[in-house]
Amino acid sequence: MSSASATVTLTGHLMDTGILARVLDDVLEYGGDYRIESLDLGRMHEDESSALVEISAADSDLLDRIVMRVQVHGANTVDPGTATTRPAPTDGVFPEDFYSTTNLDTFVRLEREWLPVDRAEMDCGLVVGEEGGRVVVRNVPVSDVKAGEQVVCGAGGVRVEMPAVVARGDEEEFGFMSSAVSSEKPQALLVRQIAERMREVKAAGQRILWVGGPAVVHTGAAPAMVRLVRAGYVDVLFAGNALATHDIESALFGTSLGVDLAKGSGVPHGHEHHIRAINTIRASGSIAGAVESGVLTGGVMHAMVRAGKPFVLVGSVRDDGPLPDVYTDVIDGQRAMRAQLPGVGFCIMVATMLHSIGTGNLLPASIPLVCVDINPATVTKLADRGSAQAMGIVTDIGLFLEQLARELC
Amino acid sequence: MSSASATVTLTGHLMDTGILARVLDDVLEYGGDYRIESLDLGRMHEDESSALVEISAADSDLLDRIVMRVQVHGANTVDPGTATTRPAPTDGVFPEDFYSTTNLDTFVRLEREWLPVDRAEMDCGLVVGEEGGRVVVRNVPVSDVKAGEQVVCGAGGVRVEMPAVVARGDEEEFGFMSSAVSSEKPQALLVRQIAERMREVKAAGQRILWVGGPAVVHTGAAPAMVRLVRAGYVDVLFAGNALATHDIESALFGTSLGVDLAKGSGVPHGHEHHIRAINTIRASGSIAGAVESGVLTGGVMHAMVRAGKPFVLVGSVRDDGPLPDVYTDVIDGQRAMRAQLPGVGFCIMVATMLHSIGTGNLLPASIPLVCVDINPATVTKLADRGSAQAMGIVTDIGLFLEQLARELC
Amino acid sequence: MSSASATVTLTGHLMDTGILARVLDDVLEYGGDYRIESLDLGRMHEDESSALVEISAADSDLLDRIVMRVQVHGANTVDPGTATTRPAPTDGVFPEDFYSTTNLDTFVRLEREWLPVDRAEMDCGLVVGEEGGRVVVRNVPVSDVKAGEQVVCGAGGVRVEMPAVVARGDEEEFGFMSSAVSSEKPQALLVRQIAERMREVKAAGQRILWVGGPAVVHTGAAPAMVRLVRAGYVDVLFAGNALATHDIESALFGTSLGVDLAKGSGVPHGHEHHIRAINTIRASGSIAGAVESGVLTGGVMHAMVRAGKPFVLVGSVRDDGPLPDVYTDVIDGQRAMRAQLPGVGFCIMVATMLHSIGTGNLLPASIPLVCVDINPATVTKLADRGSAQAMGIVTDIGLFLEQLARELC
Amino acid sequence: MSSASATVTLTGHLMDTGILARVLDDVLEYGGDYRIESLDLGRMHEDESSALVEISAADSDLLDRIVMRVQVHGANTVDPGTATTRPAPTDGVFPEDFYSTTNLDTFVRLEREWLPVDRAEMDCGLVVGEEGGRVVVRNVPVSDVKAGEQVVCGAGGVRVEMPAVVARGDEEEFGFMSSAVSSEKPQALLVRQIAERMREVKAAGQRILWVGGPAVVHTGAAPAMVRLVRAGYVDVLFAGNALATHDIESALFGTSLGVDLAKGSGVPHGHEHHIRAINTIRASGSIAGAVESGVLTGGVMHAMVRAGKPFVLVGSVRDDGPLPDVYTDVIDGQRAMRAQLPGVGFCIMVATMLHSIGTGNLLPASIPLVCVDINPATVTKLADRGSAQAMGIVTDIGLFLEQLARELC
Repeated sequence: MSSASATVTLTGHLMDTGILARVLDDVLEYGGDYRIESLDLGRMHEDESSALVEISAADSDLLDRIVMRVQVHGANTVDPGTATTRPAPTDGVFPEDFYSTTNLDTFVRLEREWLPVDRAEMDCGLVVGEEGGRVVVRNVPVSDVKAGEQVVCGAGGVRVEMPAVVARGDEEEFGFMSSAVSSEKPQALLVRQIAERMREVKAAGQRILWVGGPAVVHTGAAPAMVRLVRAGYVDVLFAGNALATHDIESALFGTSLGVDLAKGSGVPHGHEHHIRAINTIRASGSIAGAVESGVLTGGVMHAMVRAGKPFVLVGSVRDDGPLPDVYTDVIDGQRAMRAQLPGVGFCIMVATMLHSIGTGNLLPASIPLVCVDINPATVTKLADRGSAQAMGIVTDIGLFLEQLARELC
Repeated sequence: MSSASATVTLTGHLMDTGILARVLDDVLEYGGDYRIESLDLGRMHEDESSALVEISAADSDLLDRIVMRVQVHGANTVDPGTATTRPAPTDGVFPEDFYSTTNLDTFVRLEREWLPVDRAEMDCGLVVGEEGGRVVVRNVPVSDVKAGEQVVCGAGGVRVEMPAVVARGDEEEFGFMSSAVSSEKPQALLVRQIAERMREVKAAGQRILWVGGPAVVHTGAAPAMVRLVRAGYVDVLFAGNALATHDIESALFGTSLGVDLAKGSGVPHGHEHHIRAINTIRASGSIAGAVESGVLTGGVMHAMVRAGKPFVLVGSVRDDGPLPDVYTDVIDGQRAMRAQLPGVGFCIMVATMLHSIGTGNLLPASIPLVCVDINPATVTKLADRGSAQAMGIVTDIGLFLEQLARELC
Repeated sequence: MSSASATVTLTGHLMDTGILARVLDDVLEYGGDYRIESLDLGRMHEDESSALVEISAADSDLLDRIVMRVQVHGANTVDPGTATTRPAPTDGVFPEDFYSTTNLDTFVRLEREWLPVDRAEMDCGLVVGEEGGRVVVRNVPVSDVKAGEQVVCGAGGVRVEMPAVVARGDEEEFGFMSSAVSSEKPQALLVRQIAERMREVKAAGQRILWVGGPAVVHTGAAPAMVRLVRAGYVDVLFAGNALATHDIESALFGTSLGVDLAKGSGVPHGHEHHIRAINTIRASGSIAGAVESGVLTGGVMHAMVRAGKPFVLVGSVRDDGPLPDVYTDVIDGQRAMRAQLPGVGFCIMVATMLHSIGTGNLLPASIPLVCVDINPATVTKLADRGSAQAMGIVTDIGLFLEQLARELC
Repeated sequence: MSSASATVTLTGHLMDTGILARVLDDVLEYGGDYRIESLDLGRMHEDESSALVEISAADSDLLDRIVMRVQVHGANTVDPGTATTRPAPTDGVFPEDFYSTTNLDTFVRLEREWLPVDRAEMDCGLVVGEEGGRVVVRNVPVSDVKAGEQVVCGAGGVRVEMPAVVARGDEEEFGFMSSAVSSEKPQALLVRQIAERMREVKAAGQRILWVGGPAVVHTGAAPAMVRLVRAGYVDVLFAGNALATHDIESALFGTSLGVDLAKGSGVPHGHEHHIRAINTIRASGSIAGAVESGVLTGGVMHAMVRAGKPFVLVGSVRDDGPLPDVYTDVIDGQRAMRAQLPGVGFCIMVATMLHSIGTGNLLPASIPLVCVDINPATVTKLADRGSAQAMGIVTDIGLFLEQLARELC
């Protein structure tokens, strides 16, 4: 259905630097499509590669926009033609289809020869003028353009050059980094996607594994979590002594580590409620025992017991008590976790670095994995340690679980 | 109505260290009340102070719990009486009303004399036993207690001692810190409190000032923000070029800095949409001009113009363009912001460190101020720079605004 | 030796809000001294308190500066006298000793009556002028003052009023926060202070306890740590499987979790070197066994074994292996840690949240405690959980240990 | 010189997912080399690609290790041969050259047919045994292996399969992330590399551009910065009002935003010293004027003036004052910054997100760029906004500059 196309050429260390992949991504992102016409790979590591990629789009305006876009990565059209210019309509305003610059060295062809642009700066326009009798092309920010100045429009007749340092991939010496975890994503949409995936997993007869930290309780999200348990979206829970203790403390005393959840006022220093809660459950023999005897009547752990869903609590060096259900031997704990993996089709980790990494170590790469934390470092570390399938969401746990429960329950 | 009371004594640098304030806070936090019987302040900085505080509570159980609690701060009852002990019901379980230890040096009186506890560790129990014919008191974690061992119960007959270093306030040499911003708060409750406060402010005929950063758009919260504008909860908006640009870019192109908000897939590197959006508005002369001419038909800025509500956009060194409404001179911008302060009864800052501090510098201390950011540092810096009235919430902006709009609209 | 003094008065919820403590702190901070003349405490929680504090300083200029400073907290002089004004020397410049404003409602007495300042904004000056035949006082930013305008100078004749909301302590409803961990401290000075404290502790015959995370190795600080061990500044080490494994992996293979320490280039995904290192030590029976048999010849753990210093490694759910020395049962691990506490006079925690909190739970409040981490949250959580004696330093571990070793070795 | 080689095959969405690039990286990282024998690229976006890569290494042990390593990415040898097994020497210990597992579905060929491993988990070993008369291969963690069990050794006879979801690149739907900024790097080495690069740039007659934030002063690094200025390593400085003000405040009063740098004790709330410092410089007309008249005698700005080096200070909405040298119009400020770019061969940004992004917007991609900040978000945002050449270092500014000055001065 596409009615416009152009072929671009790329040269450099295309594989090592990921540049080719980024060009292809951008084409799709903008709604175009591509076909790789040829790819001449450097045989040896130190050789350069070159590629020809045909880009197609629904109309020539979109094609123009895509071609301008991929120039950011050093991709130039094979047949660039000559540049079109139009006058700036008024001071401080470019023509609507102005060529938006990259931060690469840039050349413009007006008739036959390529003229170098005076300097490189991104997000500016190219103004063609005369200086000392010669035609020159200047890089001009929008605030500095004058009415009537000739501005390059569209992608025709513009060529860029990657700086040698980037093209050669030498940046590895210095450990340059490319991308990163970002907290600037539309979160409501992500919540919907996760809800959708969870429904599919349940429809396929698979189990959903949750890994949680105590912030589930601190942030007031326990009621949302309870609804998710009751609605059948929590098939198994991995956690530590802390989540279970704070959940139970909250159920028994209405507090969690000194935060009065009903009033919302925080107490900076912890108090002894949690150790009393632990002692109470120890006296009951187990969490299930406390549920059966009527000692424990609410909260996440109570909901798990009532729903007949398994949980594995593994201890750590910072534990008080611990609760009688906690595996104090971490290797025993890992064995218990492994025993719960069969049938799991989706894993969601919320607000715990320790147990997320612990679970990530055990999971096959084939199980989709979402990690939710307000701290980007948790997600980063999970990926650094080999769980490449992890999808990271940096957000507030309390609001996230509230919204997820609203979607699913 | 209180039916039980006890008097505690405190000695040390009570004012400098804030210890007295913390004791009083804890009493209220636990539902008790206090009366300061006497306070003998050190006249000179190097002198110690001492205080007698009467604590009252609804019943003696609660009183006991409060008295145990304030021992964390070194407060002892004037008349501690003698200790009660009860046997541990089984291995690894304390009696229900066991005395939960602090990390201070502790002494127990069983009959007449005070016996030192062997060591200090918090959240343990005190076991009374015999060793070499002498009565000894050991600090024992719950996992190590044996059935039948005598455990101290209640607060009677227990005394603690603050270590000299803390009592003397010497820690200042080292810059010890006390409290901090925490992301572990029940957020849903905070949202409700803020909504309540906003309704009161509007009912009192006062204006609500918003200060916003571009993450309002990135996180997909613009629709929620638009609803808040339409419902009359945004009387004036302070922001920079970025929020307005990304909002307008999103309205014109459906993107924001390369994030396709409808699909939710992120593009790591920004593209030229934002500079085109800026150019379009520059061609219209102003944001209001673009609304009137039908160029701009949606988004937060459109809603502000339609609602006839003022906004002040102040530039910064990282701006592209900028939009024609932006004050490029920051001192002019500050003057425009000052001119909008009369009548403001509440200020909410979301997702911008720069404009939050800029606004904090201008605001009287009498205007309540809430600062919402996923980055705790923003809130910390605001308070560090003198805006002591700032209430900080560390959370996800997208989910926060969604929830706030749901409460208010 | 002080030759100037003045008495200030304070009213409000002085204890709950910590205002009195902050006034006293500021006086000392500025090099003055104080004497509390009287303190009338509200007997009940809902009553206000009032205080009279005499401030003394070496000369009247300093006294003036201190009096201006404490007005930030609402403290006014009992006998404020009348205001002095001086003309602005030129446009945009105040007289040198101008009164610098707070963000509180402010009043100026020129002759007899108190004139309200038109609005409150911090860090501005007060300009006295005429408007409609009446004397008015305006709050003016330095950029807006005109040459010759009369500017209030010194602290005389100025009075401020705390807003009711702050004075009444109502902010607690909203959980307003006061202070926070900051990374903006002169770090080199802190390193020297810690070195000094360590020397004193060793001179007193006490032991230094270190708690460490794997970043000690990742950040290239292991050689610095080894020098500290050899110089006798590491008497006992608490850590997990990770620190010891990465240290040993680095000694055996020159890598740590895929970071080649000699070249400095990072590998994002971990590899199998660490599991091979663990297997090698398991084959040797123990870390000490590997040292004795010549398998392990360098690194921190090797230095500890050679120096005959004990270490306690406690496992966690994320451990691979683990090393044969690791306590896989965390309760056993806590017991082993407790057994090492006698004689400890100083504790330093570097780059581990888990083991820092674990150790903080066990430590008496009387042992000074320094927590060093690049992540402010670690320090915050330690203090939140009751280790109030913790001094937090937010810095880079690698550079910190390098500098500490340089000071001490 | 290589004496061992093997060919591996890869299938899937090699370009989009970056898998091929990662395989090649790993080969080099481990000290091997590669030659791409063939690459059959999917012509259309939805087609799969496949590649044959010949890997060579100095000896067959290293080759084995590389081949095992690249299996993490789903690369299998074309001619895998059959598996070798050796008995575990003792309980809990693998043979030294055991095959270390990935988290992918794995198959082992002992004689002719491929046997599936029972489950996938990374960092374990493969144990060959019998069950019900059939040979089975189990994935076993090192702690669970028994003496004498047959463990697969080396890379021969092992094959892995990428899960469909990863191989098809479907993860993009979910926005899976790959890499990230890490604070776990050997910092001392990075400092040396930067010093080396700076010497080269100076030797080539180019200029070094610094972009700085106020933390340069807060962290006590101003003396180090002064030494760098004097030694000629700071040719031009971009900053805001804050860096210059705090530097000058520190020179005039010995404080910076209420932190007494000599004593190291922090004051949480700012005070009026900075506004007095600004007023003093305003009275002198400019920073250079204050240096000439002897008012300003120390600090970074003083050193720049004395060394005759230019600086560009650009204002922001949070500025007090500002200093007379500050461009209050941000577009004027950008023009002044552009005018300083010719001749710049290296740019280093320390501790400022605002000015780093502002400068990044103006810089050509050809200028190498290092960004140093204790906050990973600064580095991330810089890269997100198009400055792909940015190298990020997450570290403490004070210690970093101290160490850099020590290397260079």
